[in-house]
Amino acid sequence: MYKSKAFAATSPTSVLSGMEIPRRDSLPDDVQIKILFCGVCHSDLHTVRDEWHAMMPTIYPCVPGHEIVGRVTQVGSNVSKFKVGDIVGVGCMVDCDSKCPTCQEGFEQFSPDTTFTYNSPDKYETAPVTYGGYSDSIVVNQRAVLRVPAHLDLAAAAPLLCAGITTYSPLKRNHISVGKKVGIVGLGGLGHMGVKIARAMGAHVVVFTTSPSKIEDAIRLGAHEVILSNDANQLAAHAGSFDMILDTVSAAHDLNMYLDLLRRGGNMTLVGVPEHQTPINAFSLIYGNKTLSGSMIGGFAETQEMLDFCGQHSITADVEVIAIQQINEAYDRMLQSQVKYRFSIDMASLEAN
Amino acid sequence: MYKSKAFAATSPTSVLSGMEIPRRDSLPDDVQIKILFCGVCHSDLHTVRDEWHAMMPTIYPCVPGHEIVGRVTQVGSNVSKFKVGDIVGVGCMVDCDSKCPTCQEGFEQFSPDTTFTYNSPDKYETAPVTYGGYSDSIVVNQRAVLRVPAHLDLAAAAPLLCAGITTYSPLKRNHISVGKKVGIVGLGGLGHMGVKIARAMGAHVVVFTTSPSKIEDAIRLGAHEVILSNDANQLAAHAGSFDMILDTVSAAHDLNMYLDLLRRGGNMTLVGVPEHQTPINAFSLIYGNKTLSGSMIGGFAETQEMLDFCGQHSITADVEVIAIQQINEAYDRMLQSQVKYRFSIDMASLEAN
Repeated sequence: MYKSKAFAATSPTSVLSGMEIPRRDSLPDDVQIKILFCGVCHSDLHTVRDEWHAMMPTIYPCVPGHEIVGRVTQVGSNVSKFKVGDIVGVGCMVDCDSKCPTCQEGFEQFSPDTTFTYNSPDKYETAPVTYGGYSDSIVVNQRAVLRVPAHLDLAAAAPLLCAGITTYSPLKRNHISVGKKVGIVGLGGLGHMGVKIARAMGAHVVVFTTSPSKIEDAIRLGAHEVILSNDANQLAAHAGSFDMILDTVSAAHDLNMYLDLLRRGGNMTLVGVPEHQTPINAFSLIYGNKTLSGSMIGGFAETQEMLDFCGQHSITADVEVIAIQQINEAYDRMLQSQVKYRFSIDMASLEAN
Repeated sequence: MYKSKAFAATSPTSVLSGMEIPRRDSLPDDVQIKILFCGVCHSDLHTVRDEWHAMMPTIYPCVPGHEIVGRVTQVGSNVSKFKVGDIVGVGCMVDCDSKCPTCQEGFEQFSPDTTFTYNSPDKYETAPVTYGGYSDSIVVNQRAVLRVPAHLDLAAAAPLLCAGITTYSPLKRNHISVGKKVGIVGLGGLGHMGVKIARAMGAHVVVFTTSPSKIEDAIRLGAHEVILSNDANQLAAHAGSFDMILDTVSAAHDLNMYLDLLRRGGNMTLVGVPEHQTPINAFSLIYGNKTLSGSMIGGFAETQEMLDFCGQHSITADVEVIAIQQINEAYDRMLQSQVKYRFSIDMASLEAN
């Protein structure tokens, strides 16, 4: 074991502050990574504040962060795919069982034996739970390590590891390509990635927003059109025309109005989880053989595919790079949607701590 | 124009009774059919009582019936696919535009120009709206006429034209075949067809019901297993195991418990329309990349495919054959779920009227 610098919360109500945490010495299948940047995801905040208690209680201290980009500093004896100095990424998972059918089919995120990057039982017992990327170093099973195209801006590439794959996976599953019309609901961390990826896939991209102030930015990010979702006339003009709508909003909102915008056989996919149940009008699905889906991140192979795609198309997130000491303020701003569009922590700032 | 005997309702509160209605003389693309049997669908009752007023007000007199099997009595000069004496079927549609992309892709049920079998504007102006199958004769555009495998019991084949295609289409779309596990929610007119068709497709079929009295019948119809949907232990034993669940129930009920029974990537399809909106837990869709779909009948080509499939597998509905004079009593019994599993009207009874 060795000590790593980190920022952690010690209770649901405490701010994050500096702390030393244990990391295991590399095992034969491990890759040790010096973390360069870590994106700030809403899940980090939910977990730090124990807001998902019913599903997965937070064990403290809690070190969040699952949008990790870094440089390999050590590899175990069984590791041949990576060498010291490589630029790599780690997303929401750091290990998996790899033998169960779910893993074999490439859906490690749904295997009961997968280890998530933080607040997940640590099978090596280095600590009660795994500690995430708000840290200067991490040790990860090689299965969970991904190649990050080295020409990308690394601070801006970090959010691909969660926001990128979360939006890429359902767009890919729906065969989005030239000639398809895709709606993106919400223009935040997830939504702005959805716009860029859907555009790069060749789709006609339409952003739904309630904020006229976001129109200009949506176009800059790659949208062909912007619809103000509280304007009934604008909605009516697009009735029955969307092949797919990707809904990234987790605040309560009406889904039926979006279902009515889908063409026959169209799909709406939810990637944000509203706190309460959402009323659905069955007839909105039945008339037109439509589908409402959910999608949760992606497996290792698909995440690599997404990174390669983003490399080819030079896609990264729009980030505001912060020092780790600004993280508590960043959480407050994230709650007020005052970030365009993702915070990325420069982990060099941790050295000053 | 000629006169046809029929049973019609003259107001939302009146019973159905005998009436003469006009039918057009056959045009070059028309097929005139002597109706032998007509199945009794819940939609008939909803329309007769104007319960779908907001969507499509009922114009009276109303002659329902869209599960029609009969014998060809006359064909127009352009008709080469059918000849006098052929046994044919007509489902929910009697004509379509045939040139729009929706029709061209085989989804005539969603084309704005399609003429439905009853209570649909009559483009030939024989009457204000189309009159359905509770009648001794009907004239239908040849596009809407389907071949019924002649070895099937015709009274029992009639419900295939709506209940059959309504369940076949989503099962087919989900590639149900050997090795798939399919749940059928509700064992009524639609559900019992779903059991037979899913079984014939090779699936492992499980019926969900709240009635222990239906277990024996479900097995007889082809189910491998029956789950009492109010037994939490039985549900828990099947968590995450279904490739597809076909929900035929239109009464209000919890959908989330069924979503939790789907395996990763599984699909639940609704074919019954609950009166009110249904609350959905987004996380039940997100965890496992699941989908909730709707499905509405099927196009002409798919309906023919279903009839051919049912012919190959000797599938028909379980019917109770009634005289047209019993129709009002049959509606009362249908509302009390006292039919196993579909009424089929023997149209010879209309001669006595």
